[in-house]
Amino acid sequence: MSDMPRGDLTGPVLVVGAGLLGTSLALALRRHRVEVFLSDPNREHIRTASGLGAGIEHHGEPVQLVVVAVPPDHLGPVIAGALTTTDAVVTDVGSVKSQPLDHVLSVAPDAVDRYVGSHPMAGSERSGPLTASGTLFEGRPWAITPHERAPEPAVALVRELVELCGGVPLELAPDEHDAAVARTSHLPHLMSALVAGRLANAPVDQLALSGPGVRDVTRIAGSDPGMWLQIITANQPAVLALLDEVTVRLGDLRAAVADGSRAALEKVLAEGVAGTRAIPGKHGGPAQPTESVFVAVPDHPGELARLFADAGEIGVNIEDVHIDHDPGRPVGQVELVVEAARAPHLVTSLTSRGWDVRE
Amino acid sequence: MSDMPRGDLTGPVLVVGAGLLGTSLALALRRHRVEVFLSDPNREHIRTASGLGAGIEHHGEPVQLVVVAVPPDHLGPVIAGALTTTDAVVTDVGSVKSQPLDHVLSVAPDAVDRYVGSHPMAGSERSGPLTASGTLFEGRPWAITPHERAPEPAVALVRELVELCGGVPLELAPDEHDAAVARTSHLPHLMSALVAGRLANAPVDQLALSGPGVRDVTRIAGSDPGMWLQIITANQPAVLALLDEVTVRLGDLRAAVADGSRAALEKVLAEGVAGTRAIPGKHGGPAQPTESVFVAVPDHPGELARLFADAGEIGVNIEDVHIDHDPGRPVGQVELVVEAARAPHLVTSLTSRGWDVRE
Repeated sequence: MSDMPRGDLTGPVLVVGAGLLGTSLALALRRHRVEVFLSDPNREHIRTASGLGAGIEHHGEPVQLVVVAVPPDHLGPVIAGALTTTDAVVTDVGSVKSQPLDHVLSVAPDAVDRYVGSHPMAGSERSGPLTASGTLFEGRPWAITPHERAPEPAVALVRELVELCGGVPLELAPDEHDAAVARTSHLPHLMSALVAGRLANAPVDQLALSGPGVRDVTRIAGSDPGMWLQIITANQPAVLALLDEVTVRLGDLRAAVADGSRAALEKVLAEGVAGTRAIPGKHGGPAQPTESVFVAVPDHPGELARLFADAGEIGVNIEDVHIDHDPGRPVGQVELVVEAARAPHLVTSLTSRGWDVRE
Repeated sequence: MSDMPRGDLTGPVLVVGAGLLGTSLALALRRHRVEVFLSDPNREHIRTASGLGAGIEHHGEPVQLVVVAVPPDHLGPVIAGALTTTDAVVTDVGSVKSQPLDHVLSVAPDAVDRYVGSHPMAGSERSGPLTASGTLFEGRPWAITPHERAPEPAVALVRELVELCGGVPLELAPDEHDAAVARTSHLPHLMSALVAGRLANAPVDQLALSGPGVRDVTRIAGSDPGMWLQIITANQPAVLALLDEVTVRLGDLRAAVADGSRAALEKVLAEGVAGTRAIPGKHGGPAQPTESVFVAVPDHPGELARLFADAGEIGVNIEDVHIDHDPGRPVGQVELVVEAARAPHLVTSLTSRGWDVRE
């Protein structure tokens, strides 16, 4: 437990929606001894979240801040409701920011200066309070999206919320935010679904040739369609702009392949390489050059542990890991992604410990 | 070292192209004491491969089998050359099968019955003999693609090659193979490049919101454009057919988003979910239901080792691992993918060992 917060966010905080995000946020606040009330149409969620120590059920007590953590379809009405039934500052943790703001502007224009949207970049593949954790937001980017009429004290209160939860605040206008997530999340999701869709109903013999690449590309397409339906619908204009961009590029690509134009095809592939390099690296810095080291590992419990124990003793930090899932493979291929400068040392040291290693 | 092979593949084998695949294959054959000759326009590659124990330089000695391991652009001419300069059976390990066969049919039609194509599903992100390993093919699917005039003894010899290298033979017609890799490899690559291309030149503020999803989708887009240019060009008809299919579906998707048609959008998303489930699971069986367990892990050497050591002692096999790269995160989020039935046991046991775990 930390000390009481020394800033302006003293509580109480009302969290509306005791799912993964709401309960995680409540747990993080409780770690700082901020008083938390919970509200959720599903009473079972409140009981579970309370049992985890995330706060107690709300019965109309006055609060300093309301955090709305409900699915995208409900964001606008619930935010507007919180603004009209309390005099607190209201924020939300929804994936899309312009549509709920427009709703508030149309139904509660006089209260909008108490609303400041936000969006933590934190996992939402699982749902429900049982999947919550007070450390969910630690070190994660957390967008704060003040509209033009948002007064600085309200923005500061939301910034304090982000910092108490361990998030890294990042200020963007609502439409900038929506363009950003359309590009870095919504378009990748839709394209992943289109590629995965080509595998449904494909002959089994063809699918037997699936390797790690197609598994990577299609992984996120396995997420809950119900939630994604709401997200894409709520971010329609920004998603549409990118779909139009991709439609043009797909047309160019098709023409390049049809014409056998290597220069045009290379342009598409080179732009892809440039894009992968543009994604910021760990800890927010520019992407560090990494290298992959491939190790053959017998496929049973304990072997991965032995590998990581050896890597740990060798003192090389593992930036990422990929385990090869190819069918029928008794010896797994494990790819360790490490800082490029450390790769030769790792290869030499693992080899001398008896591992079968390729750089 | 194993015993001499007891089948019909007694050698010598000539490997043309001492890169990653050629040298790995040569090393695997040498483990079985099969005599191997090497040929490569790059003398440095031959010296390196020989130094690794992959065989000796070829000076016209008669051989039983030729394996062509050259980039896609050169496959047809090099295979045809091997057929006309030797009386051996000739195979290749290229990513595309119809185009080289057509070339052979047009320039050496009388020798085509000594040619049987093949394609191991094994890593080619790195290149050169120094990246080779005799275990590269162990347990990997390896397509054998006999044409209509290929006699069974020649097919059997290639099957023996696959088995000596530890691969899992899988017989497909050349055009079936090309349709399969277009679907499971070439289309995913191109779509990954299109998504990654939308990140190139994007505002830095927008890219700061990148999470693990976009990194997964775009990972393969970072591979060598020069090699992919050749692969896509060589598989033009199959790739074009899939690009046409995706173009239609992208049009449907765009219309669904533009019209706000939830039913049409849900159809695309649901087809994506079905596709991810169609990919065969580890060891070739139907995909087993897996579940993800999320663990907060401090980002320094040794901590991952401790986690895997604990998982190993708990006795749960890790099917896959994803490390969260979000910027600025001092505590890494590690996703352990395990058999669904074993997930609750892993969660309880890791928690009791002091790990911060979410299911």
